[in-house]
Amino acid sequence: MLWNIWRPLLIILGIVFTCDLISLFVDLNANKEEEEFVIRSFSMCSFVLSLLLSVRVNIAYNRWWTLRSGYGSAVYGVADLVRRATSCVPDMSQVLELQRWGAVWANCIYAFIGWQPALPPAIDQLLAPEEAQALRAAAKQRHYALQRLRMLVLQASSSLSTSQAVTLDDAMTKAQAGAGACGAIRCTATPLVLRYTCTGLILLWLAIVALIRIGYPNWLSLPMTLLLGLCMLCVDELASQMENAPHLVSLEALLVDAMEDAANSVAEAEQHRAAVWGWRTKG
Amino acid sequence: MLWNIWRPLLIILGIVFTCDLISLFVDLNANKEEEEFVIRSFSMCSFVLSLLLSVRVNIAYNRWWTLRSGYGSAVYGVADLVRRATSCVPDMSQVLELQRWGAVWANCIYAFIGWQPALPPAIDQLLAPEEAQALRAAAKQRHYALQRLRMLVLQASSSLSTSQAVTLDDAMTKAQAGAGACGAIRCTATPLVLRYTCTGLILLWLAIVALIRIGYPNWLSLPMTLLLGLCMLCVDELASQMENAPHLVSLEALLVDAMEDAANSVAEAEQHRAAVWGWRTKG
Amino acid sequence: MLWNIWRPLLIILGIVFTCDLISLFVDLNANKEEEEFVIRSFSMCSFVLSLLLSVRVNIAYNRWWTLRSGYGSAVYGVADLVRRATSCVPDMSQVLELQRWGAVWANCIYAFIGWQPALPPAIDQLLAPEEAQALRAAAKQRHYALQRLRMLVLQASSSLSTSQAVTLDDAMTKAQAGAGACGAIRCTATPLVLRYTCTGLILLWLAIVALIRIGYPNWLSLPMTLLLGLCMLCVDELASQMENAPHLVSLEALLVDAMEDAANSVAEAEQHRAAVWGWRTKG
Amino acid sequence: MLWNIWRPLLIILGIVFTCDLISLFVDLNANKEEEEFVIRSFSMCSFVLSLLLSVRVNIAYNRWWTLRSGYGSAVYGVADLVRRATSCVPDMSQVLELQRWGAVWANCIYAFIGWQPALPPAIDQLLAPEEAQALRAAAKQRHYALQRLRMLVLQASSSLSTSQAVTLDDAMTKAQAGAGACGAIRCTATPLVLRYTCTGLILLWLAIVALIRIGYPNWLSLPMTLLLGLCMLCVDELASQMENAPHLVSLEALLVDAMEDAANSVAEAEQHRAAVWGWRTKG
Amino acid sequence: MLWNIWRPLLIILGIVFTCDLISLFVDLNANKEEEEFVIRSFSMCSFVLSLLLSVRVNIAYNRWWTLRSGYGSAVYGVADLVRRATSCVPDMSQVLELQRWGAVWANCIYAFIGWQPALPPAIDQLLAPEEAQALRAAAKQRHYALQRLRMLVLQASSSLSTSQAVTLDDAMTKAQAGAGACGAIRCTATPLVLRYTCTGLILLWLAIVALIRIGYPNWLSLPMTLLLGLCMLCVDELASQMENAPHLVSLEALLVDAMEDAANSVAEAEQHRAAVWGWRTKG
Repeated sequence: MLWNIWRPLLIILGIVFTCDLISLFVDLNANKEEEEFVIRSFSMCSFVLSLLLSVRVNIAYNRWWTLRSGYGSAVYGVADLVRRATSCVPDMSQVLELQRWGAVWANCIYAFIGWQPALPPAIDQLLAPEEAQALRAAAKQRHYALQRLRMLVLQASSSLSTSQAVTLDDAMTKAQAGAGACGAIRCTATPLVLRYTCTGLILLWLAIVALIRIGYPNWLSLPMTLLLGLCMLCVDELASQMENAPHLVSLEALLVDAMEDAANSVAEAEQHRAAVWGWRTKG
Repeated sequence: MLWNIWRPLLIILGIVFTCDLISLFVDLNANKEEEEFVIRSFSMCSFVLSLLLSVRVNIAYNRWWTLRSGYGSAVYGVADLVRRATSCVPDMSQVLELQRWGAVWANCIYAFIGWQPALPPAIDQLLAPEEAQALRAAAKQRHYALQRLRMLVLQASSSLSTSQAVTLDDAMTKAQAGAGACGAIRCTATPLVLRYTCTGLILLWLAIVALIRIGYPNWLSLPMTLLLGLCMLCVDELASQMENAPHLVSLEALLVDAMEDAANSVAEAEQHRAAVWGWRTKG
Repeated sequence: MLWNIWRPLLIILGIVFTCDLISLFVDLNANKEEEEFVIRSFSMCSFVLSLLLSVRVNIAYNRWWTLRSGYGSAVYGVADLVRRATSCVPDMSQVLELQRWGAVWANCIYAFIGWQPALPPAIDQLLAPEEAQALRAAAKQRHYALQRLRMLVLQASSSLSTSQAVTLDDAMTKAQAGAGACGAIRCTATPLVLRYTCTGLILLWLAIVALIRIGYPNWLSLPMTLLLGLCMLCVDELASQMENAPHLVSLEALLVDAMEDAANSVAEAEQHRAAVWGWRTKG
Repeated sequence: MLWNIWRPLLIILGIVFTCDLISLFVDLNANKEEEEFVIRSFSMCSFVLSLLLSVRVNIAYNRWWTLRSGYGSAVYGVADLVRRATSCVPDMSQVLELQRWGAVWANCIYAFIGWQPALPPAIDQLLAPEEAQALRAAAKQRHYALQRLRMLVLQASSSLSTSQAVTLDDAMTKAQAGAGACGAIRCTATPLVLRYTCTGLILLWLAIVALIRIGYPNWLSLPMTLLLGLCMLCVDELASQMENAPHLVSLEALLVDAMEDAANSVAEAEQHRAAVWGWRTKG
Repeated sequence: MLWNIWRPLLIILGIVFTCDLISLFVDLNANKEEEEFVIRSFSMCSFVLSLLLSVRVNIAYNRWWTLRSGYGSAVYGVADLVRRATSCVPDMSQVLELQRWGAVWANCIYAFIGWQPALPPAIDQLLAPEEAQALRAAAKQRHYALQRLRMLVLQASSSLSTSQAVTLDDAMTKAQAGAGACGAIRCTATPLVLRYTCTGLILLWLAIVALIRIGYPNWLSLPMTLLLGLCMLCVDELASQMENAPHLVSLEALLVDAMEDAANSVAEAEQHRAAVWGWRTKG
């Protein structure tokens, strides 16, 4: 999971061995008693860096969770919209149209958040060829689908009471807010200055650790240096992975599950309508 | 409460004793003065790991609280929905139907959040056999019950004024939002990379601590090593338990209490209606 | 304020003196140079524990603030509900009824949050004897009062326009949400595993500190050990007190102040109505 | 900015010099090698205290920001209310009345949050003498003004459509919520136990630092002790200042700016109305 | 990216070299064994400062993210407002007017948040000369544009159903809330006392580090001092940059993208209307 750290770890190893090689020929050992200050400074640097790292892990986790829950409210929001529509919209064909374009929108969101180069093939099963073509021609597919979905909601609302229309609209608004939140995470990286300061200082510091090590030719000092490098680089890599949040969310599984929920709620609608309203679905 | 740590603790103990055994035969003690760097590195590793642990405890606590309050708003939200319905819905049979399906939904949420393999038996006391069968046949029981509940809310709303309908719908929406929030916690684990980096580095580090210990054959060094291991492993285990939040919430007690609240509000309804509206309950 | 720490502090003192006594007869001093590792481990333990403590203080503060602001929105929410009612409900007797039951509900919330064994006597001044009896007979007094209050709001709303009814209902909903938030804090303790891990490890650690102290018979080591114990125990006790939030909020003062606000808004109502609407209060 | 720390700093200095004086006559130096434990305990105390301080700085900053943004939404909320009223209320005299009482309310909030002993003189320019007298006679001026303002909003709403009335009311509700949030901060101090534990332990600790210093008669130890005291006391004072939030917000400037915004929106109203609706302001 | 630190770094370097120069002539070395206390105090100072720094980085990041997401909801909120209008407002000329003034408002927000001295030239392409003149003459351009926009929304709402009007108004309210949130960040700096305490103490501390260094004439002590200074100053500078948030957000790119979205939604409107409603755009 953390393979990306092999490169910096190799560099550190390289520096360590070069230093060891040099120290075979040149005697770099200054007076041991005078190195107290060096050791102390090095320990303080590590302190500042650890705190910076922990702040960064925290920030990265929040990004990840915001993306996860935003994406969740977008796709499950579509399912909820369809469920609400099945409860109050009498015309089943409008509900089906809502479900169809809801699925299209959710697929577009999936392609956008997941950095997919193209829309998923599921789109072509949902749309007629000319609709799919119009969608693909749009400047931003997710906005095109959203606008159609919103219009369908309005159309479905036109025959409903005010409170029912507000309920439908509320589901739409929540799904859109979720999509907006995870879109903001996807489009805006953590400030580069934070990432580069953090990673840069860690690498600089690890190089100097390797340098300091020369003065202490103990058999345990090599594994300890490596463990230290491993700790720092792993935590840094962990933060980087969580910042780059979409890769840590099973976007496709959530999408499929939500779309099944929507389909189920349509399938079960007749049963509920018969039980509660005594309705039979039209069309 | 923290029995899960016995296994890693045993492993550490094993390493400690193996090292002690080896050091009886082989003299591993390098020059003591040269171990300053090793000790320092080890102290810095512990620093990074402690901070990572504290970040993780914080994250785990937030998960736990989100689940607790989400579940609370779901089940007490059902009670509140029933209470609001008793205030404004004149037809008592509709209120009772709302209460019945509200209880079904709350039971489904309970079974889902608490990782129950099957629906609780309370369901069978609430539903007629064919209703229970239809519920069990549904793809996701909690969505089935929710859809029925939502339809009942809409049905009850149809005879109410806009502001009353909005009030009822608002209670429904809040309960659903609570269920969604705790469902997201239940379904999405903390990123594995966070958990494994944290636990993995701690185990690696403890193994190396046991190794370093050989150089210091003091009578206090064994209990100190064990205390250190205990601290780290306890805090890690604490975070793991809070991450796995449902086990730390008394889900069943909350469910039972909320359902009693709903039943009480129905029982007390007549008294309030008589006092405020001069109504007598129909049916 | 922190008297609860006297017991653990006494235990620590006892261990310290016992250790000192033992060390008079038995020479426990191992080789001083070999204790470096012990001292270091002990310093690392303290590190982990300090971080855990700081996370816990943070969590406890958040609990306290949530309870404070939730309770505040509940009781001042009642005052606000009355204020809004005086602006738009023409029938003054309905407003007075709202104020009366609002005060009853606020008193019930106060008794609930403040762990009062019985309802405050103010209830008897507000209610007729048979009303008070009915209230006391209810399963949960705060829910009984809430249901009555909600019905009164609905009754008052029935003669208002949609937007006015929504305004009234919004005040009611906010007060209820505040009560729910502080109720959740009151009923759910911080996970025991967090509290016990934290306090237990601190006590264990302090006992070992007292043990280590023997090796260093310096005249300053006793006060330093005590200061260290004091720091740790004070911060732990501080967290425990803030977790147990109701004791740190002046619940009664807030209740009295809010109820006076409600009474004042009723008293000033006539003046405002005459100035704005040219109304004279009926009844 | 941090002058309040001169007193504790002076005390520390006093202790330092007293200790130095004593050590000229009495030889307090115990065995240097045995002081390792003292130094280590002292370093651990400082650790716990630093973490407690950092938690406190964080809490204090959040209080400050909550107060700042709450006060901002209150006063700019009034300006926004007036702006919305100019868009939809046809009767300009109602808008002017709203603006007048909005300004009165904002001034009351300012006096309340800023711990002003009396209402600002601006009140007398806004109100007729008898109105000002009635306001000053009220139990809580800000509630009196709020009730009048709310009634004016309702009066203005009575001629509007439901959605316009909801819009006006929404602005009113947001302004009130902002005022409530900053009022809660102003009235509720951080728990005393947190503040006293933090400051008390720091002072105790600094006194002991001064005591320990005797054993190290180095020419740098005096400035280092002072720097350490300065760090701790500055950060503590910083937290105290931010907790006492109103002094760090330019309350008056925000008030004046918001009131100018409200006046401008009224002044520009005619222009907009002519452009959009073809209206001419009446009255 | 972090060039601002060259000045303090140069000062530190200057102090370092001055100290080295002095120490060539004067023997400042006190007894090495007695410097333990100095070193320890210095390490504790660094601890307090590191924690203060990490709190500050956290606060600064939150400011940055609040500004980023607030600005995003403002400009994309305008696009969303136009999108919603295209779905429900039949009169296309009203939609175009909404789009035009929405763009004006977004441009004003951009100029305000980005500390632009003047309105961007895009304004002149959007407005007729006399409109642009009136806008420039306004006290606060963003409020002028906002008031016009709000009036246009109200005008467009007048022919819509209540739920449609609420939907439009909701988009407007969200965009305004976003603008308010990022405006509050832009206008209110972090409390000076926090920034100055943090930076001031770091500089003071680095000067003393340079001073202490004299006692340790090791060849590694110079680079370590510099690395330490670099760490502290970089993290401080990082916090300062993120506090000064607008410079780290690509404000212009977001503005352009959002305005394109708005334009696209208008362009695609006809297609959707034909598909859903069978409408043909008027005018």
